Amino acid sequence: MTILALDFGGTKLAAALVNIGSRKWLRYERRLSPANANASTDLEIMRSLIYSLLQDVKPAAIGVSFGGPVDASTGMVRLSHHVAGWENIPLKGLLEDEFGVSVGVDNDANVAALGEHRFGAGQGYDSLFYITVSTGVGGGWILNGQPWRGVGGMAGEIGHMVVDPAGPVCLCGKRGCVERLASGPYMAQNAREVLETIDAPGASQRVSQRRKGLGDGEVLRSLVGNDLTLLTGQLVSEAATAGDDLAKEVLHKAAWALGVGIGNVANLMNPHRFVLGGGVTKAGEDFWQVMQQVARETALPEVDFAIVPAELGDDAPLWGAVAIASMLLTTV
Amino acid sequence: MTILALDFGGTKLAAALVNIGSRKWLRYERRLSPANANASTDLEIMRSLIYSLLQDVKPAAIGVSFGGPVDASTGMVRLSHHVAGWENIPLKGLLEDEFGVSVGVDNDANVAALGEHRFGAGQGYDSLFYITVSTGVGGGWILNGQPWRGVGGMAGEIGHMVVDPAGPVCLCGKRGCVERLASGPYMAQNAREVLETIDAPGASQRVSQRRKGLGDGEVLRSLVGNDLTLLTGQLVSEAATAGDDLAKEVLHKAAWALGVGIGNVANLMNPHRFVLGGGVTKAGEDFWQVMQQVARETALPEVDFAIVPAELGDDAPLWGAVAIASMLLTTV
Repeated sequence: MTILALDFGGTKLAAALVNIGSRKWLRYERRLSPANANASTDLEIMRSLIYSLLQDVKPAAIGVSFGGPVDASTGMVRLSHHVAGWENIPLKGLLEDEFGVSVGVDNDANVAALGEHRFGAGQGYDSLFYITVSTGVGGGWILNGQPWRGVGGMAGEIGHMVVDPAGPVCLCGKRGCVERLASGPYMAQNAREVLETIDAPGASQRVSQRRKGLGDGEVLRSLVGNDLTLLTGQLVSEAATAGDDLAKEVLHKAAWALGVGIGNVANLMNPHRFVLGGGVTKAGEDFWQVMQQVARETALPEVDFAIVPAELGDDAPLWGAVAIASMLLTTV
Repeated sequence: MTILALDFGGTKLAAALVNIGSRKWLRYERRLSPANANASTDLEIMRSLIYSLLQDVKPAAIGVSFGGPVDASTGMVRLSHHVAGWENIPLKGLLEDEFGVSVGVDNDANVAALGEHRFGAGQGYDSLFYITVSTGVGGGWILNGQPWRGVGGMAGEIGHMVVDPAGPVCLCGKRGCVERLASGPYMAQNAREVLETIDAPGASQRVSQRRKGLGDGEVLRSLVGNDLTLLTGQLVSEAATAGDDLAKEVLHKAAWALGVGIGNVANLMNPHRFVLGGGVTKAGEDFWQVMQQVARETALPEVDFAIVPAELGDDAPLWGAVAIASMLLTTV
């Protein structure tokens, strides 16, 4: 029996076929979304990937990871934050009609959590919180071995936990959300704003002297050839590793925000593990050390937990989709 | 069949007997702990309450609420923060040996959560978070109709969620925990500190003028006859209701801290309801209004929830103990 796993990822589409029980893809295809992608083009591309994968195989079930809010009970997509036209698309129904098998759909953070739980860094731990720190910060729960989605399917939003009410304003309107301090794009913005402050004609001599005296931002600037619009979260990480003090400051603030968030969650839910994926979590030892320490200090001494890196990388949603499809087969 | 419910409350001990299915105590007894209480005196007093209640009735099961960390799976008390000598007392085992029936023991926040879920403000809601705001701030989870205690029994500690990293230092060592801003004794301390600052001989004219100009703290002072050591959380609430600006400021900060905490929890777990008990939550409409508004602003717009007052009052642990004992009977 084979399972078909699909990943509607916002900027990319991926599909894979696997024999049940195997940890190796039978076939795998992946395509970038075009620049003007909408729900129809995404679905068209995905269909072509599927038919190319399946050939004459009929899968036993289909699991789907979707990059946006989904009603997992009905398999209805609510919307995509990246691709237009996904409002209220009955993705599960569409796929069931076309392929004649059971389909399970959930959002990418929940699916990745399940993937890491069944096949990755969460194996053997029945209660864990998966956090992805990338262009956004999201999370997915596994409690007692099952996904916990909340009563309205909105659980896991650690990205919009407020950790610094005096912090900068987030896209959501609040100040000092975890995402506002720790996501890649916001780290880039935070670095850019400090650099622009230093450059501003009206900047006080003292501030500017102090920062320049420390050599702040020199590496960052050189990485983008002084074009600050090119800054990214990854470049902030690289500059920090190369010893740039300003980049370190921004990265440490991100690690601090995540650490406070994780410590707060540990006090509240007391899970076994936190599994961390996403590009920002590859920022290096220094980042991990600050985050671990702050999380430990934020949690009460009696609250035990471990924070570990995700193991499945970009394939976490696909492996989670395999887990979702497997669950359909065992509960039928 | 009757159930025996026990509440080891830190400052008081209570026991009650109820017929299964009834919502009215058959018999009820309650005693304050003596000044130098320890685990032995608590147990002695509770035994005398029990024998006085039981007479010749043999209960079908015993449920116990304990005011401190408990290993609910073994019924072992870890410690009491209020009464000496409770370290590692096998309370479940002691009671089972003496009374020859099944005994369930859990900490008071979990038990009260269960009580409100089965018999109070949480009836009909399978996923809720109970928060008690009193001398401390604690919480208990009901998820899918069952208590969620965390893998080490430590879940629910919203009191030590950091909401203001620039806030005052909490007993736990961190800054700006929910408990540090919202518990009764800390509200009293916060008011006292501002009043002392105003009184200090070195206080700047300007600060002192500004505060006195607003009439700040006049009502508070009069309530304690200028003896600031007599301040309590309840007096802060009363003064705020009477229009004292300083008291209002302290109370609003408490409501704000709780609101941020609740909004963060809503984003993270997306439960149906928050049920709030404890003396501080009786602080009046103004307190509730600020807390509700801040919680609503902190949660994402898509995250729905209600915050409602607890219904069982001081009897929540006893009714929760009834629920625990009932669960023992249905699972046997």
